[in-house]
Amino acid sequence: MTASQPTVHPTAADLLAADALADVQYEHTDGVIDLTWGHPDPSALASEAVAEAAQSALATHGWQALTYGAPCGAAFTRAAIASLLTRTDTGSETAGVTADEVIVTAGSSGGLDLLLTLLARPGDVVVVEQPTYFLALRMFADHGVQVVGLDGDADGPSSADLQRKAEATSKQKNLFMYLVPTFANPTGRCLPTSRIDELLSVARSNSILVIEDDVYRDTAPAPPPSMWSRDRDVVVRLGSFSKSLAPGMRVGFITGGSDLITQIGACGLLDSGGGLNHFASMIVGELIGSGRFDEIAAAGKRRYTERCAALAEALDAKLFTFTIPAGGYFLWLALPEGVSSAGAVSAARAAGVLVSDGRPFLVDAPDAGHIRLSFSMLDVDLLREGATRLNRAIASLMP
Amino acid sequence: MTASQPTVHPTAADLLAADALADVQYEHTDGVIDLTWGHPDPSALASEAVAEAAQSALATHGWQALTYGAPCGAAFTRAAIASLLTRTDTGSETAGVTADEVIVTAGSSGGLDLLLTLLARPGDVVVVEQPTYFLALRMFADHGVQVVGLDGDADGPSSADLQRKAEATSKQKNLFMYLVPTFANPTGRCLPTSRIDELLSVARSNSILVIEDDVYRDTAPAPPPSMWSRDRDVVVRLGSFSKSLAPGMRVGFITGGSDLITQIGACGLLDSGGGLNHFASMIVGELIGSGRFDEIAAAGKRRYTERCAALAEALDAKLFTFTIPAGGYFLWLALPEGVSSAGAVSAARAAGVLVSDGRPFLVDAPDAGHIRLSFSMLDVDLLREGATRLNRAIASLMP
Repeated sequence: MTASQPTVHPTAADLLAADALADVQYEHTDGVIDLTWGHPDPSALASEAVAEAAQSALATHGWQALTYGAPCGAAFTRAAIASLLTRTDTGSETAGVTADEVIVTAGSSGGLDLLLTLLARPGDVVVVEQPTYFLALRMFADHGVQVVGLDGDADGPSSADLQRKAEATSKQKNLFMYLVPTFANPTGRCLPTSRIDELLSVARSNSILVIEDDVYRDTAPAPPPSMWSRDRDVVVRLGSFSKSLAPGMRVGFITGGSDLITQIGACGLLDSGGGLNHFASMIVGELIGSGRFDEIAAAGKRRYTERCAALAEALDAKLFTFTIPAGGYFLWLALPEGVSSAGAVSAARAAGVLVSDGRPFLVDAPDAGHIRLSFSMLDVDLLREGATRLNRAIASLMP
Repeated sequence: MTASQPTVHPTAADLLAADALADVQYEHTDGVIDLTWGHPDPSALASEAVAEAAQSALATHGWQALTYGAPCGAAFTRAAIASLLTRTDTGSETAGVTADEVIVTAGSSGGLDLLLTLLARPGDVVVVEQPTYFLALRMFADHGVQVVGLDGDADGPSSADLQRKAEATSKQKNLFMYLVPTFANPTGRCLPTSRIDELLSVARSNSILVIEDDVYRDTAPAPPPSMWSRDRDVVVRLGSFSKSLAPGMRVGFITGGSDLITQIGACGLLDSGGGLNHFASMIVGELIGSGRFDEIAAAGKRRYTERCAALAEALDAKLFTFTIPAGGYFLWLALPEGVSSAGAVSAARAAGVLVSDGRPFLVDAPDAGHIRLSFSMLDVDLLREGATRLNRAIASLMP
């Protein structure tokens, strides 16, 4: 039980003052500005909207909101998510996304775990761009799946290297490619359509299932089309409401081709437990249907755009090389020549600011030469102060 | 979206009249009495209590109810579940269950899936009593785990056969035993303490991890101690609020030894997504803390005891052999000599009552000689009418 009674909308000061957070993942460090958490702004988590939607879901759907849900998710929620994607993922030449292309999951992490359980076996191989989301690498390891890093450039992984890695993989093994093509973690970059199509062509000809981690789509005003929208059979897309609405809801989704949706819908877990997060996903369906989700997401987009700009502006351009992303939660900073990522992280800690070492985002890297800063959780003033502390810390490492 | 606007508390007539249930797992068949669903009574799902607890969780915990939850579950929820188990699982000689022995999961199915992902590899072996919960067998298959049936008697599986099966299993493979020791699905029987201790002794000496499916504990007034309470390291217990509160909440828990809890808490899925069902589990924590959960569970215990007795009384004792269970959701009927389970199921269907063929509950059984009836979902009048139809159908098969 938390010792503190947090307000519904904490200020940054509340956050820094919170003395016991054992209910949540975030761990507070006194007096420190922590830029390591890829979490939404706690002060913007829409408690009232969620409370109202919970009432509405129970009033409208009654016992159907509380009994075992349909295995692929309630038709109500699947239709709401399909309608949202038809508006936010405009890359498709078709009439849009339909409910039967959507499976409701317990967050995108739950979706990835489900895919790996049903489609992967220990010893199978997943190729990943570098850098990539480090906790996905942890989940692959938990499933015994071997991770292979792809070479690439500023536009993303190389399709030629994907072809090489495919040829180097035993035909006995399932081969996957995991990507965060839109507002990537940690770089924030989006894959150009040309690169997406090159990669999809190699994936098609080598029977590679592309796992698209698309959780940052609703963090920016103008997301590009998803990879899935360009090939609904070779790509399976993982979506989430964690970055746009509330991670504690644990509601996400998979969009995939009809064969994959059918296979997933027939698995023992969904047959035994029903839909993966029925009640919480009915709440999300209500929020989408009422328009409240769009309002909440729009406010987040404004907030994160402003915070990204403020953090970028406060960083010393003589020290750090980086591209300002059009969305997502992160800045990926190249460190000055001769400064290691480990050295930067400890100098920053000593200066009262926490940043993420780039190494976990890479496959077997002795040094990353990069650090990741999250601008999603803290307000503009704290971000500026964090940047000032970081500038000072890294400058002190220079000859 | 459902065509009907269900009431919060449907009558049995509402249930039978509902014309579109695509949001939920339950599928309605017009004019038929369906005794196949192991679901709680829809009319008893506590919509108001859940709505109030959702408000309370958001008012009390604010942003902490909606952000990423602590990996093993919110301290608040873990403590609430520990306090509940200390009251309802009284087998332990210790001071009770502590919060650090509990991990919150997305239902017991989510708990089993997590255990298999982290502890099992394809080719590993799980031994199960016969009959057992058929959907667990589906989940083992999804993880590539080989299922081996145990011989046994009316008191449960044979410890001597467990020893034989352990010796017959390669030491290279992990060996598990899956059991529903309390108010079993489908038989309703509880393992006697003497049998539990025999099985635990064999499990200990053969490094068998015992997976205890304990989801029916809160369906009856006087559940026996769990297997876990007798050996907190050799046994991992799966608990759930699906049978006692609301399956759509998707909240369950694991209790295990400290090494196992530590291993689970460090996995990629929990690190990436935070606690497995944070918001919904905060609601359950509120319901336990306020005492509402005890009221809801107590009403369920009265209801299911009454329904079990009514169904048992209405069945023709000259046709069916069965034991009246002290808890759970099911009656397991031995069919008359010469009547196959498949024949019984189709004769029943023709008479307007649906029952479960015993075969899926057994490993490779050509005929079960048994059928399962669920008394949890329908009211006493419908159960009596279902029994009348079943009596007539089976009698018609007799020479």
